[in-house]
Amino acid sequence: MRTHLCGQVTESDLDSEVTLCGWVNRRRDHGGVIFVDLRDHAGLVQVVFDPDREEVFARAEQLRSEYVIRMTGRVRRRPEGTENPELTTGAVEILGLELEVLNAAKTPPFPLDDEDVGEDTRLRYRYMDLRRPVMQERLRLRGRVTAAMRRFLEERDFLDLETPMLTRATPEGARDYLVPSRTHAGSFFALPQSPQLFKQLLMMSGMDRYYQITRCFRDEDLRADRQPEFTQLDMEMAFVDEADVMGVTEELMRHLFREVMGIELDDPFPRMSHAEAMTRFGSDKPDLRIPLEFTELTEVMQAVEFKVFNAPANDPEGRVAALRVPGGAELTRKEIDGYTEFVGRYGAKGLAYIKVNDPADPANGLQSPILKFLPEDVIREILARTGAAAGDLIFFGADRADVVNEALGALRVQVGHDRGLVEPGWRPLWVVDFPMFEWDPDDKRLYALHHPFTAPATDSPDALRENPREAMSRAYDMVLNGTEVGGGSIRIHNPEMQQAAFEALGIGEEEAREKFGFLLDALNFGAPPHGGLAFGLDRLVMLMSGAHSIRDVMAFPKTQTAACLLTDAPAPVGEKPLRELGIRLRAGVAGDGAQ
Amino acid sequence: MRTHLCGQVTESDLDSEVTLCGWVNRRRDHGGVIFVDLRDHAGLVQVVFDPDREEVFARAEQLRSEYVIRMTGRVRRRPEGTENPELTTGAVEILGLELEVLNAAKTPPFPLDDEDVGEDTRLRYRYMDLRRPVMQERLRLRGRVTAAMRRFLEERDFLDLETPMLTRATPEGARDYLVPSRTHAGSFFALPQSPQLFKQLLMMSGMDRYYQITRCFRDEDLRADRQPEFTQLDMEMAFVDEADVMGVTEELMRHLFREVMGIELDDPFPRMSHAEAMTRFGSDKPDLRIPLEFTELTEVMQAVEFKVFNAPANDPEGRVAALRVPGGAELTRKEIDGYTEFVGRYGAKGLAYIKVNDPADPANGLQSPILKFLPEDVIREILARTGAAAGDLIFFGADRADVVNEALGALRVQVGHDRGLVEPGWRPLWVVDFPMFEWDPDDKRLYALHHPFTAPATDSPDALRENPREAMSRAYDMVLNGTEVGGGSIRIHNPEMQQAAFEALGIGEEEAREKFGFLLDALNFGAPPHGGLAFGLDRLVMLMSGAHSIRDVMAFPKTQTAACLLTDAPAPVGEKPLRELGIRLRAGVAGDGAQ
Repeated sequence: MRTHLCGQVTESDLDSEVTLCGWVNRRRDHGGVIFVDLRDHAGLVQVVFDPDREEVFARAEQLRSEYVIRMTGRVRRRPEGTENPELTTGAVEILGLELEVLNAAKTPPFPLDDEDVGEDTRLRYRYMDLRRPVMQERLRLRGRVTAAMRRFLEERDFLDLETPMLTRATPEGARDYLVPSRTHAGSFFALPQSPQLFKQLLMMSGMDRYYQITRCFRDEDLRADRQPEFTQLDMEMAFVDEADVMGVTEELMRHLFREVMGIELDDPFPRMSHAEAMTRFGSDKPDLRIPLEFTELTEVMQAVEFKVFNAPANDPEGRVAALRVPGGAELTRKEIDGYTEFVGRYGAKGLAYIKVNDPADPANGLQSPILKFLPEDVIREILARTGAAAGDLIFFGADRADVVNEALGALRVQVGHDRGLVEPGWRPLWVVDFPMFEWDPDDKRLYALHHPFTAPATDSPDALRENPREAMSRAYDMVLNGTEVGGGSIRIHNPEMQQAAFEALGIGEEEAREKFGFLLDALNFGAPPHGGLAFGLDRLVMLMSGAHSIRDVMAFPKTQTAACLLTDAPAPVGEKPLRELGIRLRAGVAGDGAQ
Repeated sequence: MRTHLCGQVTESDLDSEVTLCGWVNRRRDHGGVIFVDLRDHAGLVQVVFDPDREEVFARAEQLRSEYVIRMTGRVRRRPEGTENPELTTGAVEILGLELEVLNAAKTPPFPLDDEDVGEDTRLRYRYMDLRRPVMQERLRLRGRVTAAMRRFLEERDFLDLETPMLTRATPEGARDYLVPSRTHAGSFFALPQSPQLFKQLLMMSGMDRYYQITRCFRDEDLRADRQPEFTQLDMEMAFVDEADVMGVTEELMRHLFREVMGIELDDPFPRMSHAEAMTRFGSDKPDLRIPLEFTELTEVMQAVEFKVFNAPANDPEGRVAALRVPGGAELTRKEIDGYTEFVGRYGAKGLAYIKVNDPADPANGLQSPILKFLPEDVIREILARTGAAAGDLIFFGADRADVVNEALGALRVQVGHDRGLVEPGWRPLWVVDFPMFEWDPDDKRLYALHHPFTAPATDSPDALRENPREAMSRAYDMVLNGTEVGGGSIRIHNPEMQQAAFEALGIGEEEAREKFGFLLDALNFGAPPHGGLAFGLDRLVMLMSGAHSIRDVMAFPKTQTAACLLTDAPAPVGEKPLRELGIRLRAGVAGDGAQ
């Protein structure tokens, strides 16, 4: 239907006749002539309809924004002074000779070039929103990323294998989307939160190297940057150790950035232990672009009388740490109050600080409400350890260690952004040497820091049984600019070790059998050592495209209440399908949809 | 962990030391020496453990089938006369120097080289079944097919875009898998039967060329060759007509067969109208490898007195047709009875036939129970029209046309296979010129032959409204060796035409608004002409791999009752998740799972 794409007509086409299809981006009438910016996915080109050509001019007079047309015309040079250097097509225009309206359009619900349209409107009319060049570019970037991923992996003998979407529901089914079965009424499938067990089974099936770009599902309260369905690059390899998996995946990441963005990432990626990351940055995914780090003060504060500091300093689960902000002495009272409120959201009960005017004069060169509670030698020690200079400010965190880490870690990122300290560029990082388990002081039990199939650093199931809280795992997370883009581990391939890991998590033999019997069986029939990794594709593309939300790199995302505004999903259904599924709505449940 | 793959050790490695990982395929003790066939995804290699090396020999004595090992050894030439030319590695063997058991294995539930294991056992222990080289090869072929598809399409500017899995449920929800929403209790998502509307919306979003290899879901009584979740290659293009879509997709198919199998398909694919296919083969997906076709006899039978023939011949919805079977006169009574029963399954009430001993002598040269009912001129006409030769047999179908087509069409295929008439090779075919709608004589209403979004051949909504039963569509099906591998159409892009199509289907304005309001809106905001096609990937790979079931080209398929025997899905869930979803089981529904 066309000879050229709109965005591709250039001076090399001068004097030739072209046929184009596209959308009327804008129509202007100027000096009796009609100008139309015609748009397709490749870009814009200017079309001119001259009143001398009456028939085609009359048709052009009907054109409105977003009409879909097909036109034929002659390419000519734009009059001097009217060129548009911002467009590939900016040196030319097309004199319209024929014009066919393929489809009319009502007045758009919002102007496509308006940057400030509310997200609900954008989602409701997503087919309009996606016509905007910025959205086109994001989805095209996503396509280039997945294409480059696939090629890289296939060249390295990774096999693209599909795993089921209708999988086994577990009895408690936390965060599972359930799918009632019609054939087996009263029973349910679950949509996969990840293909974890299936990819392990593929390794036990002798598939050697697997990958899949696949949809995963999680039914949870949606935080700003989560979606009920999201996409993973999922990988698994047999007969490997950590170095193999980390090697090929960081090479993949370098390849993607090089191919898609022309950027060279570090080779190799730096590595940092989980313990070091928590100590220095209070985070297991530190943003290394921000040149701020914690100063450990727990020991220093053990002997002070100031209870706010000495209580956590003497609590084995407590921590006292400082964050030096260069030039922070200029922060106003109001700004400091703002940060106090900010850390409060992470559970901190306050935000002590010292403004440093002259570090050499602790008696008169400092400003702080807490100075009077601290002996001078402690103050000197704080100044020495933080390396505070004149004009700096020191923030303090003192609480249970997890609260200090979360609150001061978030503050570090916030202050870094607020004060323009974020260095440009890309800072990948491997975080390694994770503990196997995390002790939940509220539930008084261990949780898996990754998942129950992660191999411990020890080869002895007894060692794991005897001291699970100290056990380290063979997991690794890939972090990029403060975002976890991927995570994985070497998996347990020994049935006894798997049993020991379940025990540490309080999963008894019967429960393990009930939930994971097929995995335990498979481990008994010749399971190879294996490990892998999963990347969050949406998150990664968001970072690469500079978008601020994963919704901006998905064609049809859902809202934060897990609804599709475009199609009004979810929706009520009739009585008949529910009856066939053997279920009914509970009394009082309205079933009146997402509206 | 390894220097070579098992299947890749050859004479070029002679005298070098190699480290391999893999599974013990078989262990034999022979002349005091232990022979192990070691297997990985690349193949088998023979490893020899010599009693002179006591420590490693002692370890080798523990090896059993499917143990996972890592071994180091020296490559040497096999003794003369013991080479195995069937293996790539058959000229060499490896003298074991070191041996590590990575994992033990219980006795396998079935021997991997047993070809006759029941499918239920294979599915329950799928991780064993997939270790078999034939299954490895099928899944690897599948990977090569999808990789070749993606490259072909990406080179042609098709963009890989993801569409939602949690989509809008329609009130009746026939064949939809429903997913209860937790956030909007009482409302439901549906898993997509295809991304049809989303891909059309992508065209309206200016995406120009889309493809996706995506999972689709259909909850229905499972015929032999259906799965509740299956995979489609889904495509859509804007600003195209039939020739564009058919051109690029048949080129894709030629590319796949050339790249993956080294086979050249027809260029171009032949085309046949739907009417011709039904007339000649009684099928809209004729297998052109079978050199049998129908002879039309409806007109001929209008005047005979034999009611079995004249009733359908005079019924406007009836048909009388013959199928000549070359050499079929040798069929026994029992065989003919078998075919009579066979066509009965398709609704035929009987199967008349004539054995032709001498076509030149209709009086004495024929054998048939129906001869006495037919006048001699009609018999001569039958012989002339069918072109029957001595030794042939003629079968008859006389019933409502749809019954004749289905029964005699199936018989044609069955007889073709039974009598070894199927010609080797690949016979692609486009079936075109479909009617828009099909009249259901039972429901007394029209159904869409493809789907309600298929464009009619006419541009006039009024023409469609006035005579929907005669309307032809712009749909096309790609058929390969009697299997429909793909189907598509040019879509409706005009809102008034879409409304007319809904009306023909008895979907009133309100219902259309309720179900497809977002589509009708989108058609009003500048929808380009567009069309596309979807391939059934499982079916295609099954054909290419020579497998007999799509289950054999899926890693983890479900049974014909839509259950996963490996993980025991679907399964009952507890009370808590159901309560959160606002649903309960109906009284009397057991919820006791797929077992």
